[in-house]
Amino acid sequence: MREILVIGVGAGDPEQVTMQGVSALNRADVFFVLDKGEVKQELVDLRAEILRRYATAKEYRVVVGQDPERDRTTSAYVEAVDDWRRRRADVIAGMIATELGEDQVGAFLVWGDPSLYDSTLAILDDIQARGELAFEVEVIPGISSVSTLAARHRVGLNQVGRPIQITTGRRLATGWPDGVDDVVVMLDAQTAFTEHLDQDAVIYWGAYLGTPDELLVSGPVREVAAQIEKVRAEARERKGWIMDTYLLRRPKS
Amino acid sequence: MREILVIGVGAGDPEQVTMQGVSALNRADVFFVLDKGEVKQELVDLRAEILRRYATAKEYRVVVGQDPERDRTTSAYVEAVDDWRRRRADVIAGMIATELGEDQVGAFLVWGDPSLYDSTLAILDDIQARGELAFEVEVIPGISSVSTLAARHRVGLNQVGRPIQITTGRRLATGWPDGVDDVVVMLDAQTAFTEHLDQDAVIYWGAYLGTPDELLVSGPVREVAAQIEKVRAEARERKGWIMDTYLLRRPKS
Ligand SMILES: C[S@@+](CC[C@H](N)C(=O)[O-])C[C@H]1O[C@@H](n2cnc3c(N)ncnc32)[C@H](O)[C@@H]1O
Ligand SMILES: C[S@@+](CC[C@H](N)C(=O)[O-])C[C@H]1O[C@@H](n2cnc3c(N)ncnc32)[C@H](O)[C@@H]1O
Repeated sequence: MREILVIGVGAGDPEQVTMQGVSALNRADVFFVLDKGEVKQELVDLRAEILRRYATAKEYRVVVGQDPERDRTTSAYVEAVDDWRRRRADVIAGMIATELGEDQVGAFLVWGDPSLYDSTLAILDDIQARGELAFEVEVIPGISSVSTLAARHRVGLNQVGRPIQITTGRRLATGWPDGVDDVVVMLDAQTAFTEHLDQDAVIYWGAYLGTPDELLVSGPVREVAAQIEKVRAEARERKGWIMDTYLLRRPKS
Repeated sequence: MREILVIGVGAGDPEQVTMQGVSALNRADVFFVLDKGEVKQELVDLRAEILRRYATAKEYRVVVGQDPERDRTTSAYVEAVDDWRRRRADVIAGMIATELGEDQVGAFLVWGDPSLYDSTLAILDDIQARGELAFEVEVIPGISSVSTLAARHRVGLNQVGRPIQITTGRRLATGWPDGVDDVVVMLDAQTAFTEHLDQDAVIYWGAYLGTPDELLVSGPVREVAAQIEKVRAEARERKGWIMDTYLLRRPKS
């Protein structure tokens, strides 16, 4: 039976790979990669560096497929993602069928932790549900950008006995979430924290976490929002891309 | 300047330690441990096993302090935790002051990730705020029980573009949280999922995650709740303690 490993490799520092992750990297015959045709050459290099450092026990192949385009023009976010996922599933099913022998082990490296805003597992589920290709899936958890953010700021995510919400910039822009005072925001292309300057909240912001370009800013959101916008815009301009995450914390309401 | 490392060591499998974690383990002169006077001898052994396997580069000391009792009789949860934390801070400040040389490195091992429902960072903050003892803190993120749960069930925590709430059993017992369909529950001594059998939800439940005793159950919560209660009660009886976590997922509302 074919086996597929989904390996969380951390947020950007190769040293965030776990011992379990190293074992898994050394079991794979084939690493599957989707080429996003993007400018993030650094992420491609970082992935190569992880393989170079840790996948040292045996020979392996890297198979690169072409990531289908996602329709970013539509406002139907979920539908666009669903459609994109379907076309990705086609590409990935094709790669597995043609490149992985019946008794071989394939692997996908996932940034951060595979459980957070990542489509790899859903796509593998879709492929399995089609019933045309049989394989087993094993998931190796990784250090998420959320854990990394908290670690770098040396804070906990929750207040004592209180809940945390993890959400997207898109959703935060529509209002502070109900029932929580601690909100972690990912996938924010629009600096949605600037919609909440009326809140008595503190922000812990981080970009390129775990990498040599890491940026950290924290403080009362009202006071540091402009600084974060500036730092963020400059960094994105300089590097051509940005990945940032933040925790917004307001006093217990 | 004294340095304190707060090292996330994963949910129960020593192999969840990261490469970063291994480096940190090998920088420490002193490991600080609070003896909880509890029956969880297995957790004490597991911590010793992590040190035995990975802290191999130099000599180190393990200093054990007595964890103060927490008042579990009061309904004033936050106050009881605050008071307990204060007394813990006294104990820990004493240990650091007497056992750690000015230029030495001390370390605390934290189960899972230090950012999730763990008091170590808040206690170190409290001690620093007292201004009597100077030290620097570095946090090494770890694989949380939440990431482990998701990995073992091979699921993501979020639905596409949707938020996740991480909360406590105590809070879930008071009602399904507002504004979310995906809820991760920790610190649940009361099987609060049984309060939500009216929901059309699926549960992904796991206990002793990452350990040889790991238990996993999943399915529609209405159908598997009784089974989880039974498995959970038996395991707790057999081992004398239990640690469990679960994800409740209902269709997008
Ligand atoms: C598609 S999601 C993947 C998240 C990933 N699975 C994880 O566990 O971190 C991408 C989002 O994660 C966050 N992110 C990922 N890596 C990051 C990093 N190194 N620094 C800051 N944010 C990061 C950003 O919010 C980004 O928009
Ligand atoms: C005080 S909190 C600490 C959480 C920890 N910092 C983490 O990141 O997992 C303890 C709770 O974490 C969860 N937990 C920790 N380790 C676990 C394990 N091995 N299996 C299942 N749940 C676990 C349980 O919900 C438990 O009540």
